[in-house]
Amino acid sequence: MTFEKKNIPKKSENLSQWYHRVILEAELADYGPAKGTMIFRPYGYAIWELIQKELDKKIKDKGVDNAYFPMLIPESLINKEKQHIKGFSPELAIVTIGGGQKLTEKLVIRPTSETIIYDSFAKWISSWRDLPIQLNQWCNIVRWEKRTYPFLRTSEFLWQEGHTAHTSHKEATNMVNWAIEVYKDIYQNFLALAGYVGSKSDLEKFAGADKTMAYETLMPSGKALQSATSHDLGQNFSKTFNINYQDKKGKNQYVWQTSWGISTRCIGGMIMAHGDDNGLRLPPKIAPVQVVIVPVKNDKDLLKYANKVYKIISEQDIRVKLDDRDDETMGYKINKWELRGAPIRIEIGPKELKEQNLTIVRRDNGEKINLKFFLISKLNQLLDDIHDNLLKDTKEFLDKNTFDADNFDQFKKIMKTTKGFIRANWCEDIECETKIKELTKATTRCKTNEKIIKGAKCLYCDRNAKAQWLFAQAY
Amino acid sequence: MTFEKKNIPKKSENLSQWYHRVILEAELADYGPAKGTMIFRPYGYAIWELIQKELDKKIKDKGVDNAYFPMLIPESLINKEKQHIKGFSPELAIVTIGGGQKLTEKLVIRPTSETIIYDSFAKWISSWRDLPIQLNQWCNIVRWEKRTYPFLRTSEFLWQEGHTAHTSHKEATNMVNWAIEVYKDIYQNFLALAGYVGSKSDLEKFAGADKTMAYETLMPSGKALQSATSHDLGQNFSKTFNINYQDKKGKNQYVWQTSWGISTRCIGGMIMAHGDDNGLRLPPKIAPVQVVIVPVKNDKDLLKYANKVYKIISEQDIRVKLDDRDDETMGYKINKWELRGAPIRIEIGPKELKEQNLTIVRRDNGEKINLKFFLISKLNQLLDDIHDNLLKDTKEFLDKNTFDADNFDQFKKIMKTTKGFIRANWCEDIECETKIKELTKATTRCKTNEKIIKGAKCLYCDRNAKAQWLFAQAY
Repeated sequence: MTFEKKNIPKKSENLSQWYHRVILEAELADYGPAKGTMIFRPYGYAIWELIQKELDKKIKDKGVDNAYFPMLIPESLINKEKQHIKGFSPELAIVTIGGGQKLTEKLVIRPTSETIIYDSFAKWISSWRDLPIQLNQWCNIVRWEKRTYPFLRTSEFLWQEGHTAHTSHKEATNMVNWAIEVYKDIYQNFLALAGYVGSKSDLEKFAGADKTMAYETLMPSGKALQSATSHDLGQNFSKTFNINYQDKKGKNQYVWQTSWGISTRCIGGMIMAHGDDNGLRLPPKIAPVQVVIVPVKNDKDLLKYANKVYKIISEQDIRVKLDDRDDETMGYKINKWELRGAPIRIEIGPKELKEQNLTIVRRDNGEKINLKFFLISKLNQLLDDIHDNLLKDTKEFLDKNTFDADNFDQFKKIMKTTKGFIRANWCEDIECETKIKELTKATTRCKTNEKIIKGAKCLYCDRNAKAQWLFAQAY
Repeated sequence: MTFEKKNIPKKSENLSQWYHRVILEAELADYGPAKGTMIFRPYGYAIWELIQKELDKKIKDKGVDNAYFPMLIPESLINKEKQHIKGFSPELAIVTIGGGQKLTEKLVIRPTSETIIYDSFAKWISSWRDLPIQLNQWCNIVRWEKRTYPFLRTSEFLWQEGHTAHTSHKEATNMVNWAIEVYKDIYQNFLALAGYVGSKSDLEKFAGADKTMAYETLMPSGKALQSATSHDLGQNFSKTFNINYQDKKGKNQYVWQTSWGISTRCIGGMIMAHGDDNGLRLPPKIAPVQVVIVPVKNDKDLLKYANKVYKIISEQDIRVKLDDRDDETMGYKINKWELRGAPIRIEIGPKELKEQNLTIVRRDNGEKINLKFFLISKLNQLLDDIHDNLLKDTKEFLDKNTFDADNFDQFKKIMKTTKGFIRANWCEDIECETKIKELTKATTRCKTNEKIIKGAKCLYCDRNAKAQWLFAQAY
């Protein structure tokens, strides 16, 4: 166990270095031996388990069943849907040798599982009675990435992917909307991370989808992070994979499909958005340690009192830890738990013991509170307050860094200086989108719900705008 | 949803076909498109989730932390430990292409994770303060197998693998023993599957271990199934990977290590051991549906009563399902739920409604019980009885099919006819072991705790026996 706060630069001075160092020093993760891979250490994996537990419950409550499909996809299968393979082929890791033999057909490690799952759907679905099929799987995914970042973009990552098939487009649309609302809920009420929901442009949508809905958050660098997506696949895959059924009238119909996913990337977004110069600030709902108790020294009476406090707190379903290591000083422990982002630190010294109270330090704002021992039950409220405060911070940051641009000069200037989201009208022509990206590195992130004024022009060309969109440079 | 009981041969007549058909028709699993892979369908995956939930709790209670290491292992890393790679090299799946480029170093898909995890241990461990490290991961594994069987042996499977490092061999031994006891507990108290615990021979132990403990069960074919293993790795890997630490006296020491795992294979063993001619018989603790309520017809009063029953049962933490589909007959549903192995079926007809009672059918022995409505609380006891009965069956089968052989002629005769486990004395020489296997297909499964009589001879040669061993043909 080492941790060296001095190795960590200020967040405001070097965000990228700060990010890498905090992840390593807080023991969230480490680099794997193969290029672009990462190791989820227990403290980082515990965050993923907390997210999984919450999301898995929501998925099951919706009537979606967990399943598991093979990771290795025959090349011929993944090549079936043309748009899909076009999007994913640059990122594939391919197995060519098995059991000492060159394989007759290459196997692709899943970059996502549409093709292998829908191959089975075609076998399993024959009547309207078999529908809807609503499946989800928790698994690992491999996408060969050139530039990698722990959590945010790694060759292998963990995610959940939902896959459903329905008798009507309306039912599929409901599922797409349900999924993106669930992700929004996880981001806001669990990760305390404000963001925008909207549909992606044709250029930016999922390869093989008719429409993609996304949750987009804003990082301190002013860059956007695509944080979760939900896809209306229409009948694209069902026609390619021949997934059809007899309807009640005996007529053959293709199914309507959806897929949706959220990955361990969300942990990266959370780290970047909430952290400060002292390290992580974990939102209470995903903090493996919500409350840490640090006795100023390990003497008998203090430890007895600390243990009593520990017991009462743990009985309230709070994830609490008593740090009674005797090989670290109080100062070292304080730095360590600030770095590790525990939302509440309780300091216990002779004064606290004598007065039967607790010194409580909030990680989010550093505030010190003196709490009477018998008021320990207030801790849950305090954890909620910390969550709300972190969410408020990201909401304010998002609002403050979302700009309106009436013309392309304004747009360029913003993208050169502050960055952030820009609301602008767009003709929805891919040529303008490509040109804007070329000139400013900004891409369309998602469409807003704002009605545009009749006759409003596209940000870039002179044609009429079709809608208002959010633009940003993206991770 | 199709199911065709008529496609399923009798278990006693064709075990292998019975096994494959039951798995498909009960919708536990399906074949994947790549050779030797399988799809875990929701009903099969739910069994794994129940096992995971129980085992994960035990692992965490022991102070072992979950983590996640990359699936892709550089070839140079996996080649480091000579015994280890010798054991695994015939089974490797290898990635040679990434992102459209031929890789400069091939990447192996993990067949187990010792090498990649211990590479990190070497980085993370420097002082006695860093020990013990106790990690576990839930993940997928790929081993290229020539002959595959759903659940029992597939190219890709799911498992948990625990990996620990300690300052003393004693501490490591305690961990090895703890793990095998936990697996025994899961098998007996969860999967209702009796078996033997003992150490493996040098030939059969894990590649790279000093000693392997195994849980060995017996399948109806008379063949043994290695059902879970726990390895004492000694200092083999720590010396190869240079995992050392400074002890309290400042002296450099190598760590002592263990690894242990249980896989989705356990579901295959459970299916084979418990099933009968009508399909699955699921032990209650791992049954996704413990109680199914089948109204004889979907009329209003019956459904109302059935819903009332459903509500009361579900309030008792029993996994209950009301099958009120209106496109299947009562007979079809009875067959379906027998095939799917629900431990208790409740039939509700006009007579039951009138008399305010329930007709209960036990899946394990077919017994019909008339239960007064107000005695629903007895169901939990009944589920326990069913578990005990299934476990007793496998225990009796195990005892009845464990034989003693005093000489090799007896041994050969048993292996030709009934098969099963044979207790026999062995000199522990690998030459005898190899010869016995060649002549009878039987391998050593594990050592027993029986003391042997002084001067007892080896089953095969004339030398003195070292211990009593269990032999069997194995899956």
